[in-house]
Amino acid sequence: MAKLTQLIDNEIFRAYATYATIVLLKMMLMSLITAYFRITRKAFVNPEDTASFGKGESAKKYLRTDADVERVRRGHLNDLENIVPFLGIGLLYALSGSDLSTALLHFRIFVGARITHTLAYLIPLPQPARGLSWVVGYAVTISMAYKVLKTALYL
Amino acid sequence: MAKLTQLIDNEIFRAYATYATIVLLKMMLMSLITAYFRITRKAFVNPEDTASFGKGESAKKYLRTDADVERVRRGHLNDLENIVPFLGIGLLYALSGSDLSTALLHFRIFVGARITHTLAYLIPLPQPARGLSWVVGYAVTISMAYKVLKTALYL
Amino acid sequence: MAKLTQLIDNEIFRAYATYATIVLLKMMLMSLITAYFRITRKAFVNPEDTASFGKGESAKKYLRTDADVERVRRGHLNDLENIVPFLGIGLLYALSGSDLSTALLHFRIFVGARITHTLAYLIPLPQPARGLSWVVGYAVTISMAYKVLKTALYL
Repeated sequence: MAKLTQLIDNEIFRAYATYATIVLLKMMLMSLITAYFRITRKAFVNPEDTASFGKGESAKKYLRTDADVERVRRGHLNDLENIVPFLGIGLLYALSGSDLSTALLHFRIFVGARITHTLAYLIPLPQPARGLSWVVGYAVTISMAYKVLKTALYL
Repeated sequence: MAKLTQLIDNEIFRAYATYATIVLLKMMLMSLITAYFRITRKAFVNPEDTASFGKGESAKKYLRTDADVERVRRGHLNDLENIVPFLGIGLLYALSGSDLSTALLHFRIFVGARITHTLAYLIPLPQPARGLSWVVGYAVTISMAYKVLKTALYL
Repeated sequence: MAKLTQLIDNEIFRAYATYATIVLLKMMLMSLITAYFRITRKAFVNPEDTASFGKGESAKKYLRTDADVERVRRGHLNDLENIVPFLGIGLLYALSGSDLSTALLHFRIFVGARITHTLAYLIPLPQPARGLSWVVGYAVTISMAYKVLKTALYL
């Protein structure tokens, strides 16, 4: 039987595990920030969420959109759109036998770019801060995809 | 050459494979429920989807939002936001050499929490049913992330 | 220590790596198409994105939704909803010891169906082109899930 500790003993795989977990925790933080803004701004979308504010019209006024809530939600969706490719392509890249320092470089830049993207979205920073951080994460993922296809291509 | 059956012979990995597949099938079910409500409520978003109802104004009135459709879509997006971290962190956790009973506990609670979340969203149940089921799934993922980082940390 | 090249030497795993990467790159392309339509249609959602068009009312008019932008965004979200299950279930399927030609058939049909789905959404083609391509990708994923559960079931 394979010892599963074999994979997790490999340094590149450990680096992938570390950075993938960090960037997923960052993405999960978006849920908490959304909840924070929904509660402090009193801006909900489900009628059952406003039941504690009373019944009828007094509760209905909290069923509304709020600019801050929508901003966090856009950041969250952008995370999904970009972190899902990183998770899949990054895992395959970690198994493709790159050298450790190159792999670390890819993982670190991607995670740094996504943290910057979130800060640029939520503060918000003037453009092109958000655009550039997005491009950097995108380019890192493309670079890993190129390596995966070069190593593994089997059509 | 590695025998790929090695991984799938490991009990923790098999447990991960089972629960990950079940929770993904549950998420995929949301697409069918959305389609069901779009068709029964006649609430579509793409003009080409209403072509069978005739042309011009008679079809245009079906390009509208419907409360039930939007509710299923919010449940689907919440699934994506929470099941993607489970997939990634759970895979790394399954490779991190936890003991089998602890791993099963994590996987079972997560999948149970997400099924409860969907029921709470669609019925809908009064709060805090949906909130609590969301928190439980979130906490399980954090617990697995902690174990992954403790085992694999390589920055 | 495990040689990570072992997994990537396996033909089924290489096929998975290839098709997963291709379909993720296709999904990432949706971000570029969204950006293209946002810029050419001048339809933005974040105030900081319109700052280069001037200040005040002259910039505010570009904070609007555009039918083409929304269409690409729906295609992108549909990708997420369908490609995430393919990534997870497909990885487990690739590790479940199917035979190579059956695995290739699944991966090729899925990727072909998703490319067709995107074309049907963006051109747009009359229904049922988009609906059918969605069903085909969905059915391939269910077929892989069945094989994973038959091989690995551990509840």
